[in-house]
Amino acid sequence: MSVGGVDVGGNGIVVVGGPCAVESLDQSRAIAEGIKDAGGQLYRGGAYKPRTSPYSFQGLGEKGLEILARVREEFDLPIVTEAIDTETLPLVDQYADCIQIGARNMQNFSLLKAAGRARKPVLLKRGMSATLEELLLSAEYIMSEGNYKVILCERGVRTFADHTRNTLDLSIVPAIKRISHLPILVDPSHGTGKRNKVAPMSRAAIAVGADGVLIEVHHKPEEALSDGPQAILPETFARIVRECDAIAQVVGRSLQPALAAS
Amino acid sequence: MSVGGVDVGGNGIVVVGGPCAVESLDQSRAIAEGIKDAGGQLYRGGAYKPRTSPYSFQGLGEKGLEILARVREEFDLPIVTEAIDTETLPLVDQYADCIQIGARNMQNFSLLKAAGRARKPVLLKRGMSATLEELLLSAEYIMSEGNYKVILCERGVRTFADHTRNTLDLSIVPAIKRISHLPILVDPSHGTGKRNKVAPMSRAAIAVGADGVLIEVHHKPEEALSDGPQAILPETFARIVRECDAIAQVVGRSLQPALAAS
Amino acid sequence: MSVGGVDVGGNGIVVVGGPCAVESLDQSRAIAEGIKDAGGQLYRGGAYKPRTSPYSFQGLGEKGLEILARVREEFDLPIVTEAIDTETLPLVDQYADCIQIGARNMQNFSLLKAAGRARKPVLLKRGMSATLEELLLSAEYIMSEGNYKVILCERGVRTFADHTRNTLDLSIVPAIKRISHLPILVDPSHGTGKRNKVAPMSRAAIAVGADGVLIEVHHKPEEALSDGPQAILPETFARIVRECDAIAQVVGRSLQPALAAS
Amino acid sequence: MSVGGVDVGGNGIVVVGGPCAVESLDQSRAIAEGIKDAGGQLYRGGAYKPRTSPYSFQGLGEKGLEILARVREEFDLPIVTEAIDTETLPLVDQYADCIQIGARNMQNFSLLKAAGRARKPVLLKRGMSATLEELLLSAEYIMSEGNYKVILCERGVRTFADHTRNTLDLSIVPAIKRISHLPILVDPSHGTGKRNKVAPMSRAAIAVGADGVLIEVHHKPEEALSDGPQAILPETFARIVRECDAIAQVVGRSLQPALAAS
Repeated sequence: MSVGGVDVGGNGIVVVGGPCAVESLDQSRAIAEGIKDAGGQLYRGGAYKPRTSPYSFQGLGEKGLEILARVREEFDLPIVTEAIDTETLPLVDQYADCIQIGARNMQNFSLLKAAGRARKPVLLKRGMSATLEELLLSAEYIMSEGNYKVILCERGVRTFADHTRNTLDLSIVPAIKRISHLPILVDPSHGTGKRNKVAPMSRAAIAVGADGVLIEVHHKPEEALSDGPQAILPETFARIVRECDAIAQVVGRSLQPALAAS
Repeated sequence: MSVGGVDVGGNGIVVVGGPCAVESLDQSRAIAEGIKDAGGQLYRGGAYKPRTSPYSFQGLGEKGLEILARVREEFDLPIVTEAIDTETLPLVDQYADCIQIGARNMQNFSLLKAAGRARKPVLLKRGMSATLEELLLSAEYIMSEGNYKVILCERGVRTFADHTRNTLDLSIVPAIKRISHLPILVDPSHGTGKRNKVAPMSRAAIAVGADGVLIEVHHKPEEALSDGPQAILPETFARIVRECDAIAQVVGRSLQPALAAS
Repeated sequence: MSVGGVDVGGNGIVVVGGPCAVESLDQSRAIAEGIKDAGGQLYRGGAYKPRTSPYSFQGLGEKGLEILARVREEFDLPIVTEAIDTETLPLVDQYADCIQIGARNMQNFSLLKAAGRARKPVLLKRGMSATLEELLLSAEYIMSEGNYKVILCERGVRTFADHTRNTLDLSIVPAIKRISHLPILVDPSHGTGKRNKVAPMSRAAIAVGADGVLIEVHHKPEEALSDGPQAILPETFARIVRECDAIAQVVGRSLQPALAAS
Repeated sequence: MSVGGVDVGGNGIVVVGGPCAVESLDQSRAIAEGIKDAGGQLYRGGAYKPRTSPYSFQGLGEKGLEILARVREEFDLPIVTEAIDTETLPLVDQYADCIQIGARNMQNFSLLKAAGRARKPVLLKRGMSATLEELLLSAEYIMSEGNYKVILCERGVRTFADHTRNTLDLSIVPAIKRISHLPILVDPSHGTGKRNKVAPMSRAAIAVGADGVLIEVHHKPEEALSDGPQAILPETFARIVRECDAIAQVVGRSLQPALAAS
């Protein structure tokens, strides 16, 4: 499956990086530079943010999409960004290389069907208490409308455990590999909610057989407008890319090369 | 708060009944007759159904809304029905007396904001793994758009326990009563997924202080197009109404009278 | 089933009260007086305390059992108290009218078998993440050794929800009533961990069909050596007994009378 | 920390293998040969089995311990075996090189204290719904009695997810490494309950930073007296040992060599 020229779900693993939210062109560029230098192949940033509270920062909207488009052009990094409703999905489809459907919308069936009518691949995140069957049936909503380019993503589930914000359920990766052809990524940033767990859980994700990881990166995490506590610095991201590459080789895979700068 | 003339959240408790899905005029009438005879004050049935699988029955759509409108007229039962996306919400707002937002959409923020611009009261169901704070912040999304008529609903959460489909968390009722002015109903049908648990959990819901219960009723549960295993017969519903009335009196409340037939 | 002359599991419901831990004769007497005056039929207090930390108060041990025996004599309140290991179980069996096995020991099979060889009825609390089947199989461990006097107790399970310390799973009461002859009590004190939830959840427990409730009472909750935040005052206990009696009558039962003072 | 001469918690990782239950000398030998040939450093098998049902196979008891002792002698494999009560713990302490305390007994405080008075290292498994704090406080019960040789073990927790028997919570490994000096192993066999998840989750465990893995191996899984569905064949075990070694090197560690055959 090609996301803007980057193969996802093949033998090469992918490392996706970027900020939780697009905050400004300067911020997005600074982070993109780190992602590209580290060997990350895709850039993810939110222009539309589904926030628990209506009074939190809700994203820059179309202005954010424009920033993402400039980042893609400048750094040759294909863009993954979230669509949060059917109204804005066509715009996201137009700007992005891959449309993310977030965990809270995993069973927003109208949005899934609209994504099924879009042209771009869809990154579908597992809901916070979704079973394997429910995740695959949500993918089916997208595919039943004609878009077969679905990438799944494990991002942690709700449990009683309190040492992480969510419990990252890595066993779903081999479970999906047994019964589905769809690629699956792992998001250790939301999956743990804690910066210091991102590197070890990224390594574990590749070791368990995931097709890649999705990591929140910020050049100034303490100033991030959302999810700062789980964001890592570009230099930590670079180390994770190297470790994931080494682990990938143990399981007979390798790091997918990034697009050559044009 | 008035739902088509029926007070919700006052001293009188309400019992809402109806089928999971509106299947036909005959089916809806047969069930409505049972609800009305039993003393139920509101009728709930789904015209748009958010189903886990894209290949399950998805509801009758606007035809279902028309059937509901006829049932209201014929039986003087105000109507509660679900809106599943921003596209169909205006139509639901036009036909219904109360707009339900389902558990899967509790954090579909665009839908919440649209419901906040509707004129009718909104019944907001708790997500399957939503915390108390998240539920109240979702209500805030509706209210921040100007619609203050929000009714909360506990409908069970996901846990390891396997003797019921969900674990009905009745303790959220007193927790909400301590920090919010919003009424709260309990749905023991989805909350347990098992017909034989509906009566005892309805009684418990009123005993714990809920403002009412929401119960799935079908005159032929074995033929129901969705959620048959949790639907009860009209005669069981009638017994539950009587028991809820008796329990209500212990806690200093009483059954809200149904609208007089016109 | 008779616990020191009080029938448990018959038509009459029982209300068990007492402190989490026996702290002194004065404390135990003060609380027992409140329990008795309110119409509580059984007194529960811990002499051996299974505490999460080895550095917390561990109970008075045999001295605590002696205090309990004096309370029984003085107030005609049969005694329920916990056995935490096979070493002290014979002593507990000797002093108590009912031996409690705590949630943490629900699958301590050696202790269960020892309780199966004791003469007194056993109150078996559900483990924090035990299924219905596991609870009944633990009861089977006791019964397979010859002691058929087992009383089950729901005390809340571990979930993601954070508005209570545990999530009280009342639906297990009708689930057990369908497949087992064993009586079942509900413990709303541990089941919620919050004082202000005890009264509403006690009412709900009786409404759902439980054979009684088990409530932590302390005359000075702010000075309690353990679990103070969930302990209620004797006057609140008295109100709960009255409410449970009223609810019991709705479900065709009544409050079991306490033993007459000798 | 030395377990019969094998270092646990140092730079070298350990792979522990063996059957859920010791069934016979022939069975134990056949499996031990596979473990040894594969490079496994420790042998684990249950002589005393804590079974959910009193009617399931309960283990061979002391006869099982004798078999384990012969296996150690013959194959130079130090022995890990479970103690289920204070009565049999001294015997286990005498025969074993490491005393396992199972998940169901993680808060059996009397057993923990007895293990704290034993001479052998203790492998303490996390309870099915234990928090990080509770696990460390249970370790504290052992250490407060003077035995500082405690090895922790993650073995999966209870959640709503149904694609595995338990949800293996690998994020607890880095969480423990941040606040405790104690070694931690991971048990992917109980942690998933499914044979085909054992290899990928073993790799992930080493990638995340665990000090080793604990794996159920049986030469004839379909004839196993307990937990057959999660047991793997010796040849699969051998492949896992090789993969763990390769992953260990990525994280700057290596496979701990097995004891030389005497």
